[in-house]
Amino acid sequence: MAIAIALLAGGACGAASTARSIVSQESRMPTNAGVIASEKLKLKPIPVSAVKMGDGFWKARMDANHERGLPALLKRLEDHGVIDNFMLASGRKKVERKGPYFSDSDLFKWMEGAAWDLISYPDPKRKAQLNRVIDEVVAAQQPDGYLNTFFQGELANQRFRNLPLEHELYCAGHLFQAAVAHHRATGEDKLLECACRYADYLTTAFGPGKRQETDGHPEIEMALVEIYRATGKREYLNLAGFYLSTLEPEYGPKLKGHAVRALYTLCGEADYYAETGREVSKEIIDRQWKDLVSTKMYVTGGVGARGQGEAIGEPYELPNEQAYSETCAAIASVMFNYRMLAVHGESKYADEMERALYNGMLAGVSLSGDAWFYVNPLAEHGGRQRQEWWGCTCCPTNMVRMLASLPGYMYSVSDEGVWVHLFDDSKVTYHLADGTPFTLKQKTKYPWDGSVEITVGLDAPKEFTVFIRRPSWSSPSFVVGFDGLKLGEACRSNGYEAIRRTWKPGDVIKVEMDMSARLIECDPRVRENLGSVAVQRGPVVYCAESVDNPTAVIRDLEIASNEFESVFDAGTLGGVVKLTGRGRTPMDPNGDRAPLYRQLGRALGEDYARMHQVPLVLIPYYAWANRGPSQMTVWMPYRQ
Amino acid sequence: MAIAIALLAGGACGAASTARSIVSQESRMPTNAGVIASEKLKLKPIPVSAVKMGDGFWKARMDANHERGLPALLKRLEDHGVIDNFMLASGRKKVERKGPYFSDSDLFKWMEGAAWDLISYPDPKRKAQLNRVIDEVVAAQQPDGYLNTFFQGELANQRFRNLPLEHELYCAGHLFQAAVAHHRATGEDKLLECACRYADYLTTAFGPGKRQETDGHPEIEMALVEIYRATGKREYLNLAGFYLSTLEPEYGPKLKGHAVRALYTLCGEADYYAETGREVSKEIIDRQWKDLVSTKMYVTGGVGARGQGEAIGEPYELPNEQAYSETCAAIASVMFNYRMLAVHGESKYADEMERALYNGMLAGVSLSGDAWFYVNPLAEHGGRQRQEWWGCTCCPTNMVRMLASLPGYMYSVSDEGVWVHLFDDSKVTYHLADGTPFTLKQKTKYPWDGSVEITVGLDAPKEFTVFIRRPSWSSPSFVVGFDGLKLGEACRSNGYEAIRRTWKPGDVIKVEMDMSARLIECDPRVRENLGSVAVQRGPVVYCAESVDNPTAVIRDLEIASNEFESVFDAGTLGGVVKLTGRGRTPMDPNGDRAPLYRQLGRALGEDYARMHQVPLVLIPYYAWANRGPSQMTVWMPYRQ
Repeated sequence: MAIAIALLAGGACGAASTARSIVSQESRMPTNAGVIASEKLKLKPIPVSAVKMGDGFWKARMDANHERGLPALLKRLEDHGVIDNFMLASGRKKVERKGPYFSDSDLFKWMEGAAWDLISYPDPKRKAQLNRVIDEVVAAQQPDGYLNTFFQGELANQRFRNLPLEHELYCAGHLFQAAVAHHRATGEDKLLECACRYADYLTTAFGPGKRQETDGHPEIEMALVEIYRATGKREYLNLAGFYLSTLEPEYGPKLKGHAVRALYTLCGEADYYAETGREVSKEIIDRQWKDLVSTKMYVTGGVGARGQGEAIGEPYELPNEQAYSETCAAIASVMFNYRMLAVHGESKYADEMERALYNGMLAGVSLSGDAWFYVNPLAEHGGRQRQEWWGCTCCPTNMVRMLASLPGYMYSVSDEGVWVHLFDDSKVTYHLADGTPFTLKQKTKYPWDGSVEITVGLDAPKEFTVFIRRPSWSSPSFVVGFDGLKLGEACRSNGYEAIRRTWKPGDVIKVEMDMSARLIECDPRVRENLGSVAVQRGPVVYCAESVDNPTAVIRDLEIASNEFESVFDAGTLGGVVKLTGRGRTPMDPNGDRAPLYRQLGRALGEDYARMHQVPLVLIPYYAWANRGPSQMTVWMPYRQ
Repeated sequence: MAIAIALLAGGACGAASTARSIVSQESRMPTNAGVIASEKLKLKPIPVSAVKMGDGFWKARMDANHERGLPALLKRLEDHGVIDNFMLASGRKKVERKGPYFSDSDLFKWMEGAAWDLISYPDPKRKAQLNRVIDEVVAAQQPDGYLNTFFQGELANQRFRNLPLEHELYCAGHLFQAAVAHHRATGEDKLLECACRYADYLTTAFGPGKRQETDGHPEIEMALVEIYRATGKREYLNLAGFYLSTLEPEYGPKLKGHAVRALYTLCGEADYYAETGREVSKEIIDRQWKDLVSTKMYVTGGVGARGQGEAIGEPYELPNEQAYSETCAAIASVMFNYRMLAVHGESKYADEMERALYNGMLAGVSLSGDAWFYVNPLAEHGGRQRQEWWGCTCCPTNMVRMLASLPGYMYSVSDEGVWVHLFDDSKVTYHLADGTPFTLKQKTKYPWDGSVEITVGLDAPKEFTVFIRRPSWSSPSFVVGFDGLKLGEACRSNGYEAIRRTWKPGDVIKVEMDMSARLIECDPRVRENLGSVAVQRGPVVYCAESVDNPTAVIRDLEIASNEFESVFDAGTLGGVVKLTGRGRTPMDPNGDRAPLYRQLGRALGEDYARMHQVPLVLIPYYAWANRGPSQMTVWMPYRQ
């Protein structure tokens, strides 16, 4: 895989690439001097192919994704006619077109996932599957480059008839991302050439003096920056800028509207800033990031309060049982926070990326890897289950590409050295900015255990900095030891421990984090969480699920104590640390505690006196609903 | 008005009537012995015409409704073509049909309101307006009795094509209710005869062996019971029973679905029970009432958590800012609770009726009487305003008929005596069950003041019971004095003080209620209210509005003390008691109090130390948004 520079799914930037390219050096030279340097990024991404996951937390998820998620989803895409649609468009098969107008994008997202997956699991069968799909997709392309199965049959003369609603550019974007991923994973050009033909067509159709409009569902923007990075063709970057400027008049100062669209827009702005340094883009991403994390984000990192319009709500509107928190929005938040991290080099962005990864995003997929939630409530009193398919199957296809590309989110490099953002058993093999090869090997049982051992590999001693993230939840317990010494505060930089020295091959850095369960409170302006707490252990948010708490009605459960026992249970839910503590519920689990409304304090003591003490068992939120229909809650009342 | 026995808008029962009737005695005799006795009701309604409102709280609302609400709404109905639609149907005018398919119902509801209004305000101009409208409606009726302007033009052959969605029977129901009100208010038959022709047609079209279906929006059921009461025609009652039995398979054990439809169904079941004693109906109303008041009702008496489907939510799903709480649903709750009160004779139903009247319902109309809310949130951070018209204008038309019929909700009679449910300056002139005439005159400034003086009027001494409601919020302060004595607990009956004696003309009963402001807490399962309190004074729920609290951001406001000063301010909001107390907000009104999520208790003391103490001014919730765009909240954090 040496020739592939694999960047992230919709990755934030490109680095010097040795991959053979469909574009000549000449075509790149005028603007990019042969490489796309993403100069405005403080931290440069490390390719997916440079990181090999060890036997840790995320590897288990990637295994499930590889072994069950990707093949199951391919079968379901085939069963639902999504591939047949391309064969219809190419004339290879006589069928009726099936599925929603944006179903092409689902196949493209699966292709992107399959491409990233090939890096960690070089499986010839998967590769053959992917090649077959690529063949069908490419065969369906129109001579002028256009490619969208919904508008190639009876509606062939109605291209772009309704961009606000019909997602043609959104589909195109996912094709481009799949193509770049495939190119980076395999070095092959077939799909990238197809994508470029379509992108070239778009540059002739849209822009100043041409059609002045963009898609109702952003996605094309970051995809165009990505295909620019892969090819060096400036027109793609310019078209991304045009689409962004067309979207911007709708921006207010605040994050609003459809959660996934809003976050994809911000990813596009961040990518555009990375390549151009455009200040307007930076102002937008900074302002809206602050609005997101301070008023519109769940403790799980989920985003999107409302089912209606799949929308972000008012500030502090974060209902738990009625949460929408679409899986795609949590994925988009990971993507956006990763880009912000690359732009700013500050740990607060990695904190939010980690929050979304372990909680809001991961809850979207079953432990088996082949069933998915679309909506992720933080309290459930019915018995909601993950499904193998959704009529709008955007979330499953988003999940498979995110999990397959996950190694790319763990480390970065900068002029100063190497950055460790996420903790997991893994090894990165890459080079410093000056070209010096290095490896970092993490040995850890994180997030179940707070010890991380990082071994530096070098050909020869070399001075540079290793930046190790101090998760905000770990403060003040976080300790980094090196060479028998503990480091002081002086070494901290933007939320990272910055260890600068002349590293020798085999040097070991030891990190210790206190993994006690912590009670988390919420800004009181989120009225639904006032008086309640969530429980977090390390980066993992916990919940009470009915399976483990048979003596209580989940809706009634209160936390009676802030002390928990943590025990790793290898046999439960794929291996988790369970928390055991003390809870409280009304005497009569189905009965009246008191009238719905009453004068404050009247008989309050009596109420508490007649409440049951019950054992309280908590499991990671991401693992809920893996043992049949159940009830669940993250936030529970707690009286200090 | 002696010949009119005016019952409620959609009233729960009929009493012995001396009104001339369009049906002969013969047609009534077989089943009703000449009168409809509503035998299953413990409490018999007193006609609207028997109650004259004094110079009190509700009279001011009725005046606004009479002087501005009814005429403004008639003009807007005309401007929107709602009357023209009837002229089109009758061939009197060549126009295009305008408005939604159910717009006929809006005119019928206005007509019902105008009819009740004539009782309290015998205004010849209003009567002429109503007669003109009646003339247009009757002229539009088809020869077979059918009447619906949406299905009399091009769609004439498509009657009842889509009952679940197109509301034909709903419209018919409002015609019947308007007709009964008009008949009771004026003794005239023209509209009632029109309604009967339509009802007769329905009896030929629907029922066992005929069309087996009912409307998606209940309303016809209670209307048919009402027209049965007015005419004695048993077929109408039977048809109501048929429609109810058609609806019932959709009932679960819990109240659910569209809030107004659910509550109208319950009104129909209660009315049907009143006339038939059918146990199934009673079980439904009892079970669902309990579910309503214990898990699905706002502290304002509002009902309906969700905009989507205008629906009741899950148990304890009662968001404040996102509340739907449609004005029509609060009106429906008043109607339903009044019926439950008549069935059971227990004060808890009157308590809920009063709660909805003073709060959830009354907030739906401006102080001027001619602008209306459709949605009634319990917190507003934008600047929502009442409007003069809504595309679906159900709420304004519902409000005008409710306010005009309000005198009918204050008193009842039973075999034992007279019942006082609501306190307001007023005089009832009626007769006991045995025919003995009496008057009760209430002198009070309720709800601003807790003193009520009730003077008994009789031709001669007479033994009977006066039942005076003890509002649940007044406990334990409620004191009834009579003849210099205070009554003991022994006299309490179903939440009423039951004073049995031989009453003499001029006897005076004195009621004293403690009107201190009280902090109200909510069942902790309504997570959005946990840790917060509402403030209630008497039956009136209060709120903080930005107009009165310029030093705070309403969303940030907390209550710092449980002590309030109450001052009646005649010059504000039509005259209200304002509450003044102490609040608290963050130092920086627009800034960060703390991260959205953080470890519990960390720096909590510091947070409170750096909060501003601010004066807190509260006004009645019903009066909010009468001084321009504003922010508002009912529930506010409070730390005991």
